[in-house]
Amino acid sequence: MIEPVVLKGFRDSLPKDEIPKKRIIRKLEDVFSSYGFVPIDTPVLEYTKILLGKGGGETDKQIFRFEDNGGRDVAMRFDLTVPFARFLAAHHDEVGIPFKRYHINKVWRGENPQKGRYREFMQCDFDLVGADNAESDYEILSMMHRSFSALGIEDYTFHISHRGMFSAFLKNMGLDEKSTDILRTVDKLRKIGEDEVRTLLVEITGDEGKAEAVIKYITAGENSSFEETLSKLTELSGGENESSERMHDIYRLLKCSGIESSFVFDPSITRGLDYYTGIVYETFLDRIPSIGSVCSGGRYNNLASLYTKEELPGVGSSIGLDRLMAGLEELGSPLLANTSSADVLIVHSDEETENAIKAAEALRENGIRTDIYLNPNAKMKRIYSYAEMKAIPYMLTLSPSLTLKNLGTRETKEYGSIPEMIKDMKVD
Amino acid sequence: MIEPVVLKGFRDSLPKDEIPKKRIIRKLEDVFSSYGFVPIDTPVLEYTKILLGKGGGETDKQIFRFEDNGGRDVAMRFDLTVPFARFLAAHHDEVGIPFKRYHINKVWRGENPQKGRYREFMQCDFDLVGADNAESDYEILSMMHRSFSALGIEDYTFHISHRGMFSAFLKNMGLDEKSTDILRTVDKLRKIGEDEVRTLLVEITGDEGKAEAVIKYITAGENSSFEETLSKLTELSGGENESSERMHDIYRLLKCSGIESSFVFDPSITRGLDYYTGIVYETFLDRIPSIGSVCSGGRYNNLASLYTKEELPGVGSSIGLDRLMAGLEELGSPLLANTSSADVLIVHSDEETENAIKAAEALRENGIRTDIYLNPNAKMKRIYSYAEMKAIPYMLTLSPSLTLKNLGTRETKEYGSIPEMIKDMKVD
Repeated sequence: MIEPVVLKGFRDSLPKDEIPKKRIIRKLEDVFSSYGFVPIDTPVLEYTKILLGKGGGETDKQIFRFEDNGGRDVAMRFDLTVPFARFLAAHHDEVGIPFKRYHINKVWRGENPQKGRYREFMQCDFDLVGADNAESDYEILSMMHRSFSALGIEDYTFHISHRGMFSAFLKNMGLDEKSTDILRTVDKLRKIGEDEVRTLLVEITGDEGKAEAVIKYITAGENSSFEETLSKLTELSGGENESSERMHDIYRLLKCSGIESSFVFDPSITRGLDYYTGIVYETFLDRIPSIGSVCSGGRYNNLASLYTKEELPGVGSSIGLDRLMAGLEELGSPLLANTSSADVLIVHSDEETENAIKAAEALRENGIRTDIYLNPNAKMKRIYSYAEMKAIPYMLTLSPSLTLKNLGTRETKEYGSIPEMIKDMKVD
Repeated sequence: MIEPVVLKGFRDSLPKDEIPKKRIIRKLEDVFSSYGFVPIDTPVLEYTKILLGKGGGETDKQIFRFEDNGGRDVAMRFDLTVPFARFLAAHHDEVGIPFKRYHINKVWRGENPQKGRYREFMQCDFDLVGADNAESDYEILSMMHRSFSALGIEDYTFHISHRGMFSAFLKNMGLDEKSTDILRTVDKLRKIGEDEVRTLLVEITGDEGKAEAVIKYITAGENSSFEETLSKLTELSGGENESSERMHDIYRLLKCSGIESSFVFDPSITRGLDYYTGIVYETFLDRIPSIGSVCSGGRYNNLASLYTKEELPGVGSSIGLDRLMAGLEELGSPLLANTSSADVLIVHSDEETENAIKAAEALRENGIRTDIYLNPNAKMKRIYSYAEMKAIPYMLTLSPSLTLKNLGTRETKEYGSIPEMIKDMKVD
């Protein structure tokens, strides 16, 4: 006998998890489609040199990499961004630029599994490539807002900043050469706190005054409206520039569609990664900020530069679906609550099989999901337990009369015919 | 520069492929749900010993197998059946038996890519476990029928046979010890033809008369109704037995729901695999039988016996989604035809951005998928080419008046307001 275990850091998705996951994905896909975004998919396995590109980072150690039977150095994708860059380089002529795509699928990382972290997890990426203006930035932000709203989440806040403004500030302070280290440090603010960040900044800049100025910049958003923060930061960066103007334009468009109250200007958001050049953002669920950002991204100048000379500026976001689902569960979201396998369970004797099949077909044709209990001779106790495990709310028995039982309230109701019952259920 | 290529036998899924694939999957999921079937998912990577089980077959050579960073012998799943068996052994108490599940996802095989065959492909499996009676067999067949009907396919035929009847026949002929070899040979009938099969059968049985009897059995379905074939085969097997009675019962239920004309009794169907014990079936698209079976499966006694002592009889099917999509394309299916990214493309000047955003929101709220062209200063030629590449049927311009252009017929229509236009589009 082989023990039926999964690998460390991996897990099965049971119906109680998979049903709401599919429900959430459909809702997101419907929002994305409504904006003219289209789905793509890419292979799980790619040449390692394509996935790692320049390489040398943390990713190299975490990747599932091996030699295939043909002696190729291959690896499983660790995100959906790198495959998208490769995809764009290969297909930009076929898909047409600007290109608005989403991609919802699994990625793999061999990192040590911690609480809530797995080696196999779902990402949901959406990017808009081939346009660089306030309207495109707005479009991604608007779609994020619409997505969270479609999921029925009540309190969420998008924390936005602009890398260009931060760069202008650093230049204004004479710190532009140390920007990479400073960005990485500032990115840790939420994790290690202000004091620790200050200490690190003093080490990097060698100047307590400058370190304090950076702290002042990244905390300028606290208790301050979007426009106030924007004006403070503009001043700290030495006056208006292209980036601050972009932020004004984006905010104007957010106001135009009446969603501005979900956005705060938070200059502590930097997204450590080097490739961002414009707006950057993270998304927090207000009631449970501790779970971290559930949707992050930003604008990049040239996504596919490793694979093509074509310049492809874009802006995009990534939703960590597993983390988002954990968050929704903690919030008691109704999206996760209903995991019933069917609306009605038909229970019948051997002699009633044909009637049961006909009844099931009539119900299904009317949009009522109908399961038939398949072991006619089972004891009722076993059948009730079956219905409970599958969370089926109603049980239908066919004789001596058509009887529908609400398994929650235990109320029963008799009907003269299936159509009569269907009519009544639809009114419910 | 790194060349943006994918591995041999792998491919990107572009929007023109991914949009219809998602559409087809949604339709199948809706059918499965209507029968009370629930989705699951399992890890892509598993312990090799779990995936290969007893091993020793063709699969061993075709599997993507490697040692992970923790020194484990792991592999990528090559089908959805083995992971389901492992899943059932681990979770049967949690999910409740009978268990009706579907699983739609990718599998990987390192076989040499041929025309239409890839190393990464989509399977769609649905199984019903924990019941062994005619009603369960019928339920899977009925769901197959409903699935093909939901996909709008007009001509399809399910070819059914019963392994138990074939075994009874072989026993009746004194050939039961050679059944495995005979099954494998008969399974090749469609591929190598009757003469070749006869030659092989003579080799196996060492008896021309017996070989001829086998040929007579497996061709008994030609030009013969379901019931006639059943009666002929029953006679050849030495009279009624449990298996022939099961086939009578199944046919009675098919007739009861009026779908019997899509089913033929085809005793040449054996499904070479050893684990089938009851009905077996393959599905052919009548107009293009040459692409082979697009949905196959059967009944097995004990799926998870490698991993648990629990007896879990079941019946299930697998749709090869990529092959089915190739078939639908060949048939000119409307399911594949519409790959538009949006219903309307809004084209606007820089000054009209806010109006464009408001118009887009109103359209989207009314279920009209709306894309906004993001480079306001582009030439019209470029914009038309964009709309064409994305297959967007309508273009909306905002000034001097609201004008909707049908990009197919080039007809234009002016409107006084967005609500007026929406009303008109909905009537369309």
